[in-house]
Amino acid sequence: MIGVGLIGGSAALALRRRGVVQHVTGIGRTRRNLDDARAAGIIDAAMTLDEPWTSSLRDADIVLVATPVGQMPALFTAMANALGPSTIVTDAGSTKQDVVAAARAHLGGALPRFVPAHPVAGTENSGAKAATASLFDDRNVIVSPIDETDAHALARVRELWQACGASVVELDARQHDRVLAAVSHLPHLLAAAYVADLAVRADAANLFAQAGTGFRDFTRIAGASPEMWRDITLANLDALVDELAAFRGALDVVEAALRERDGESLRTLFETASESRRAWARGRGGEPSGEGDA
Amino acid sequence: MIGVGLIGGSAALALRRRGVVQHVTGIGRTRRNLDDARAAGIIDAAMTLDEPWTSSLRDADIVLVATPVGQMPALFTAMANALGPSTIVTDAGSTKQDVVAAARAHLGGALPRFVPAHPVAGTENSGAKAATASLFDDRNVIVSPIDETDAHALARVRELWQACGASVVELDARQHDRVLAAVSHLPHLLAAAYVADLAVRADAANLFAQAGTGFRDFTRIAGASPEMWRDITLANLDALVDELAAFRGALDVVEAALRERDGESLRTLFETASESRRAWARGRGGEPSGEGDA
Repeated sequence: MIGVGLIGGSAALALRRRGVVQHVTGIGRTRRNLDDARAAGIIDAAMTLDEPWTSSLRDADIVLVATPVGQMPALFTAMANALGPSTIVTDAGSTKQDVVAAARAHLGGALPRFVPAHPVAGTENSGAKAATASLFDDRNVIVSPIDETDAHALARVRELWQACGASVVELDARQHDRVLAAVSHLPHLLAAAYVADLAVRADAANLFAQAGTGFRDFTRIAGASPEMWRDITLANLDALVDELAAFRGALDVVEAALRERDGESLRTLFETASESRRAWARGRGGEPSGEGDA
Repeated sequence: MIGVGLIGGSAALALRRRGVVQHVTGIGRTRRNLDDARAAGIIDAAMTLDEPWTSSLRDADIVLVATPVGQMPALFTAMANALGPSTIVTDAGSTKQDVVAAARAHLGGALPRFVPAHPVAGTENSGAKAATASLFDDRNVIVSPIDETDAHALARVRELWQACGASVVELDARQHDRVLAAVSHLPHLLAAAYVADLAVRADAANLFAQAGTGFRDFTRIAGASPEMWRDITLANLDALVDELAAFRGALDVVEAALRERDGESLRTLFETASESRRAWARGRGGEPSGEGDA
């Protein structure tokens, strides 16, 4: 496991919960996080990236790369010649076209045994200490196999995530990135832009003091890892720029309705949103109800 | 109690929990919701607005107006001459300048016994069936007394909300509306605009199918009552237009950073947001951690 943070750590705990993993070697940037991971029973052995970590790859059944996507090209380059002949490689990156491009460029003969994947789960906390065995229960994992992908490798990676409690769905990398820009990357960007805009104001403390449960939920994702989100944003830039443009177009319409005091249009907007959001939650078997603050 | 929905119903349940209320008459638009309220033990008696409801005001200690703010001018007009000489009136509206203006225009001699207030709590569900006794536990209620407000009336309304489990803070109406536009009304508008924009697309179903826990939290408030939010939006239009303009300015900066692939600026944005959001949650005594979906 390269990158023993929230996602990698949670995957290891989930696999251990099902008893389907014997030995996990954790590879990471800082000794401290690896010590945390060992203390939490996530990994059995640890190496930092300053140590000769690629020596541990030869005997691995599966290598899970669970780092921010910006680090993957260099990691793939270092891994390519050190993998065992049947070692499967998969990733947990939040974007897929850039990861596929990096794998094509750097994984060499191991490319067919690389399975691009994205567990759509997380919390706003990061690091091994934030890991939990239940993180993937009832969540989706999207796999994005390419033409070269070996069927056996794909099947093993599907099994891995199913053993973690997730449902596995297939989406090609381009489609994945377009869909995730709309339903995940844009909201994260908007929540961050919103909180940062309030935070730098002279009266920020007064504003935050009156923030209630609606603010709490709307901004939760703004607490996520800055490094990870910079990487995601850069990796999925084109789709994200398109989504941002679409949203700004929607705001043009909203602003015009406000300025014209057009109550009917505003009501229609809130109605469309409310009905769609409620239908979505019902489709999830009734997500727990949350709190607003009107 | 005029308007026996989520807020009014929850207040009645909270007051009953503390044993500080003897008799609650519920007044509302539909018999059906009043029947629900009676079945839930929220109210003891019920009248619709088609019945001679103002006759019930004379003997009331306190009248709580918990309807969407757009209905308050007409209600105040109907109430003014029917109130008992010491009956206190308060409201639970999400905006305060418009409610104060309506009270000044229509409450006549009862104005000093009117205490403008706003319980900053809610869920995305509405109606008496959604009411719960714990809704205001550890939440803020903002009171916005005006020069004319009677000190005794203010003290009684503070006690009322404290008995519901809330903390009471004081903010003048203009300040209230400005602050709430920033921390509540704008997020509700953005969440609604975002969900509505996705909902009308041809591939909406495919998008919603991949939406995870980040989407769930970010959009929760988009499920709220359309009528209430149209009213809030119109009532607090000027402050909301200012906040929307500020946010669109922040999006200009974000979009420029994206188009220039400026990773440093993006990282700084996510860092500012993440640190501020985490500090806010810590200041709340550690709000429960939530989920993203990167």
